[in-house]
Amino acid sequence: MKKVALAFDLGGTELRAALVSDKGSLLSFSVVPTHAAGGPAAVVQQIELLASTVLAQTPDLSPVGIGIGAPGPLDPEAGIVIAPPTLAGWYEVPLADILSSRFQLPVRLENDANAAALGEWRYGAGRGARSMVFVTVSTGIGGGVIADGRILHGRRGLAAEIGHMTITSEGERCFCGAIGCFEAVASGTALGRRATARTQQFDGSALRQLSADADVTGRHVVEAARKGDVQALELLQAEARWLGIGFTNLLHLYSPDILVMGGGISHGFDLLQEAMTTTIHDRAMPAYRDVPIVPAQLGRHAGLIGAASLILSSEEKIGPGPSSPEDADKRGAA
Amino acid sequence: MKKVALAFDLGGTELRAALVSDKGSLLSFSVVPTHAAGGPAAVVQQIELLASTVLAQTPDLSPVGIGIGAPGPLDPEAGIVIAPPTLAGWYEVPLADILSSRFQLPVRLENDANAAALGEWRYGAGRGARSMVFVTVSTGIGGGVIADGRILHGRRGLAAEIGHMTITSEGERCFCGAIGCFEAVASGTALGRRATARTQQFDGSALRQLSADADVTGRHVVEAARKGDVQALELLQAEARWLGIGFTNLLHLYSPDILVMGGGISHGFDLLQEAMTTTIHDRAMPAYRDVPIVPAQLGRHAGLIGAASLILSSEEKIGPGPSSPEDADKRGAA
Repeated sequence: MKKVALAFDLGGTELRAALVSDKGSLLSFSVVPTHAAGGPAAVVQQIELLASTVLAQTPDLSPVGIGIGAPGPLDPEAGIVIAPPTLAGWYEVPLADILSSRFQLPVRLENDANAAALGEWRYGAGRGARSMVFVTVSTGIGGGVIADGRILHGRRGLAAEIGHMTITSEGERCFCGAIGCFEAVASGTALGRRATARTQQFDGSALRQLSADADVTGRHVVEAARKGDVQALELLQAEARWLGIGFTNLLHLYSPDILVMGGGISHGFDLLQEAMTTTIHDRAMPAYRDVPIVPAQLGRHAGLIGAASLILSSEEKIGPGPSSPEDADKRGAA
Repeated sequence: MKKVALAFDLGGTELRAALVSDKGSLLSFSVVPTHAAGGPAAVVQQIELLASTVLAQTPDLSPVGIGIGAPGPLDPEAGIVIAPPTLAGWYEVPLADILSSRFQLPVRLENDANAAALGEWRYGAGRGARSMVFVTVSTGIGGGVIADGRILHGRRGLAAEIGHMTITSEGERCFCGAIGCFEAVASGTALGRRATARTQQFDGSALRQLSADADVTGRHVVEAARKGDVQALELLQAEARWLGIGFTNLLHLYSPDILVMGGGISHGFDLLQEAMTTTIHDRAMPAYRDVPIVPAQLGRHAGLIGAASLILSSEEKIGPGPSSPEDADKRGAA
């Protein structure tokens, strides 16, 4: 019998489910818009429905457990979703317990950025590394860290809040209130904002053509640069420099064996790479300069695959002290 | 029989040794200037001599093992000192093996900043925390991180290079070549440099009186501020703001239960505290604002006590996977 896990990726916009093999492949998949306004009960109902859909696609397979990625803050050890800003009415929801009693299966919960980091680590670009930093650069900047063979959690699972690391004293104020956050200068949003400021409606630029004369996004910049647009290429140079400054900090602070970049802006990885590498080489201390910086491999499925790996990979330890599949079973049966 | 460990703190300037009890107390202590120019053989000889001195002070006690803190980069798992800039001629020296064959005892090696962090964690200001960040602010800025119950090592043991985290785009160039390193704006050296720039020889200021009209140091600023000197108090406000910005990053990145500040400048902790706390409150995301920031408790002995704890505290895991006292014994006997 094939060993498979049921995985969920619970976001404020989409709820995604899959049956995942122990090789990290999706055997079935389904997605619905998250009923975020309905509170926990409505979403749990969606999860049950989505599980039926996914399981019906592969009637001969029974999952050995359930892994879920959900927005933080959450407590991965207790399996509790604490108070995610993107899910209305969620406050201290014991999601792992709720689902394990519904499905009679062991359930493991992890925050979404960590789940994606786990996916890339176990089945994607970070395979074989003992320490890995995963950075996702899209609307915001988030990340997850594998430190010496396990996820870095810290107090309340809040480690690796990479986007709100101060790296400069310039730029626009971050939504968090501070000046100089990595996210405020280097996210896709920041890139789009710079592109919008540099162009004008109806100016005939490639960037404004791609955006249909609305605000330019980071993805438009990547797209225009790929077609050779000089303005877009210049914007990406500046973007790459900010990313390089932030990545250099992450190398110094976590000393990973590899740094994996995901998120929408990583579609322009090849266009960013040279300037990022130059910045890192200029700023990192010598011992950190040769750490590979690579694009993510699993795309938007990283979180699902990583969530499944919470069940499928027994080596992964979470919470205090050594944990084992038996522990997961115990929690599942509680 | 009392359980004790022999501990060494090997620095570029001083070599210190102590017999340490399992309560973290120094039972005997000795120190000599490090024969840094003499290469590994000369220093190993010093270590043997110092061990005899320390052991002779407590003839009724036999250490169960040896813990050493030494300058990085080093490989804590293999027990190899890689290439410390402050020790001439040291290159890939298997110090743990050398000493374990000389003393016929298990030997554990850790980098000096991590050893100090371990000391504060096990016996000092960080007792009971699952995650802790230790920052030492003196000539430079260094640190060690306890993450989810164990030292954060990363690739080649190089994690937590806190001093070279970029936090601004202003200030003087760091010795490492980059602009905006935490160390370049917030170390005792940076504080002294600002104080020197703000005063003049023979200007009669409290700062120049304390420095005997030479360059002002960070310690002079703390001393003058303690006497109520307005200029020094203003300089400490600016210092506290830089420390607050850097500490906020460390909270976001590692999510410790507590942040412990050591080093020479921490003698002014009470004078810095209010402005540091205000900066952290202004810049940290809400979930991180209540993390206690406290002064170190063990002073200059933190490294020795932490090195001893490598032997005395069997819970501490280093290197890949679970390690046990048996592992240490095996390495010791090899």
